[in-house]
Amino acid sequence: MDSRFDRLPDRQGSDSIKWRRYDGEAVIPMWVADMDFAVAAPIQEALNRRIAHPVYGYASVPSSLKAAAQDWLAERWGWSVPEAHLVALPAVVPGIHFLVRALGRLGCVGGLAYPSPVYPPIRQVAQNLGLNAYPFPFSPTRSVTLAQGNRGGWDLDQLARACEQGADTLLLSHPHNPIGQRVDPQQREALTELVAHYGMRVISDEIHGDLILDGLGHCPLAKDPRLAERTATLFSAGKSFNLAGLPFAFAVVPDPKWRQALKQSLRGQAPAHNVLAMVATEAAWREGGAWLDGLLDYLAANRERVSSQLAGLAGVRVHQPDATYLAWIDCRGTGSARPAEQLRRAGVGVSDGTEFGAPGFVRLNFGCPRELLDEGLQRFRRAFEQRA
Amino acid sequence: MDSRFDRLPDRQGSDSIKWRRYDGEAVIPMWVADMDFAVAAPIQEALNRRIAHPVYGYASVPSSLKAAAQDWLAERWGWSVPEAHLVALPAVVPGIHFLVRALGRLGCVGGLAYPSPVYPPIRQVAQNLGLNAYPFPFSPTRSVTLAQGNRGGWDLDQLARACEQGADTLLLSHPHNPIGQRVDPQQREALTELVAHYGMRVISDEIHGDLILDGLGHCPLAKDPRLAERTATLFSAGKSFNLAGLPFAFAVVPDPKWRQALKQSLRGQAPAHNVLAMVATEAAWREGGAWLDGLLDYLAANRERVSSQLAGLAGVRVHQPDATYLAWIDCRGTGSARPAEQLRRAGVGVSDGTEFGAPGFVRLNFGCPRELLDEGLQRFRRAFEQRA
Repeated sequence: MDSRFDRLPDRQGSDSIKWRRYDGEAVIPMWVADMDFAVAAPIQEALNRRIAHPVYGYASVPSSLKAAAQDWLAERWGWSVPEAHLVALPAVVPGIHFLVRALGRLGCVGGLAYPSPVYPPIRQVAQNLGLNAYPFPFSPTRSVTLAQGNRGGWDLDQLARACEQGADTLLLSHPHNPIGQRVDPQQREALTELVAHYGMRVISDEIHGDLILDGLGHCPLAKDPRLAERTATLFSAGKSFNLAGLPFAFAVVPDPKWRQALKQSLRGQAPAHNVLAMVATEAAWREGGAWLDGLLDYLAANRERVSSQLAGLAGVRVHQPDATYLAWIDCRGTGSARPAEQLRRAGVGVSDGTEFGAPGFVRLNFGCPRELLDEGLQRFRRAFEQRA
Repeated sequence: MDSRFDRLPDRQGSDSIKWRRYDGEAVIPMWVADMDFAVAAPIQEALNRRIAHPVYGYASVPSSLKAAAQDWLAERWGWSVPEAHLVALPAVVPGIHFLVRALGRLGCVGGLAYPSPVYPPIRQVAQNLGLNAYPFPFSPTRSVTLAQGNRGGWDLDQLARACEQGADTLLLSHPHNPIGQRVDPQQREALTELVAHYGMRVISDEIHGDLILDGLGHCPLAKDPRLAERTATLFSAGKSFNLAGLPFAFAVVPDPKWRQALKQSLRGQAPAHNVLAMVATEAAWREGGAWLDGLLDYLAANRERVSSQLAGLAGVRVHQPDATYLAWIDCRGTGSARPAEQLRRAGVGVSDGTEFGAPGFVRLNFGCPRELLDEGLQRFRRAFEQRA
């Protein structure tokens, strides 16, 4: 196991949103999705090199960055993407909004379907853009709360009903945040048929695609030729390389009309590309592979720690994620009305499931050194043991 | 004169949009608005310090950055702004769009008036947002083409007509890009009365406010209490400190309803704040004052060079700017159908006035070392002398 990840960078008093929330409180921050690990050394080195050149004027997206993205997708996701299909974006979540606006320009957006629970920004897109929202259930496949025979994952019957009612655009988080789950082949096939049947467009946020924990690799939805033309796929080095504060993303948009409309939507409304975010991203994809592999091992071991240390805690059910550094935890059985608040009082700061559409759940970020994680998990146990 | 500004950083083959446009051509790029000067040393040092801390996660806008902005506005613009009125933005131009969308949320945007010529993104806002556009003329005050008695500046009679026709929001570039002109007190007074009379909202892009060349200082429109509540003012270190590739901006929005609607418009649609752009901006405002003063002297001398070296060139009239590093040049008298193309063939790359709404004009960026400027101006002369 790579000991680099055992070192905790001092983020107290830094600009970190994650740490600032609990300034002055004895709370371990395990909420917002960035990790308490130093970035890969090549990223820091690339930033230093770029800063040594003392002009930071308007910058185009270098062809070397696009090539790095293409190579990354080919090597890691087995996905061959033509350069012409790539559109640079300020970040993934604004990119989702720009893609929906672009559909509006083409006159083909009615309502937005999305799985629930899901990370909060996806839930807000419809409201932000004045469109109808059609949430449909998503359940953990391996959840102990599922009846035999119910496979979990997307509830495609509900999605079909949403389509009948006017949903024509599907927003997905794949692998899923907060449940950290990959799609099984049968679900993928059923989704593909449904999407084709209703002529839906798909906007697939695959920012966690590099964080599949068991070496199984990520399979982007748009790799299926039946989905390719109707899908826009978003990806970024932001989550996997811990660059949330240097945002940059690409969309893969094979449909030329949608791509053109996206570029028009971006005009004037997206900021100029940040030169240092692009440098960091390119270094991540070109030189960060080994670091990422080490990270994945570390995260997989952290995941086991979460499961084992919370096992047997009365009323608490941990979903074992396939991907991400996020654990989705059902605390409804504890009887606590606001488990996130109770955890905070016990000194551990998690995300409240209410914001994801699931009161009684919490999301715990285990992207941190093991010592900190263990302390957080101890406090987690104590929060509910004290109550019991 | 500060010799630091005489050194030309090598931007060929870099990520610079300005230089890449003419890759492989013997053309001096004097178009897009960034400068060929190294940034102030404290900016580079601050970036290096921040990069040494190896986590670049989600970052809030530090209160130290807001305080730096407030102090800068107080010292440089004589303007006292409460912290609560500041809203952080990804950049100025997207910020204009967000401010207009916020007015849409409040149900109070009909049509957009803006001066013409003006820099291209302002001309596109109405189209981007599906609103009516009401351009009204802006003329250089000291233009030799103005008749006696015509003071130039904003054509407020035309603006009043636009209001009668449905314009209710005024987009301004102040000081004006591309004409580089401050507002004289009489025009300001007349504008204030007109805006109040029609109950207009004003979105004032004051990004060039730090680049007043004759030591007269900048007076933000919103300093007038009659305009304050109806105005949103945008500012940034981007132009004055040459940070176009590290974009970040603030809006000052005294009206609480507009400010709240702006924050709602930003939700999910603006990227996370870039940690390094914020670091660069804070260093600029805290430690860059002396560098900026040196720059202003250098630019003022460059401006004289533009005027003197193009003086007497048949058919060419140079407007002498009060502000910015941009010279607005009327080439209509040369008989050239496309003066920007003719200049490019002569080896100097300027912005085509057509994009600003003024065919036959060009905008020349004189924010570069004197040696390069002189060579550019020689080529400029030759372009039209050859033709004559």
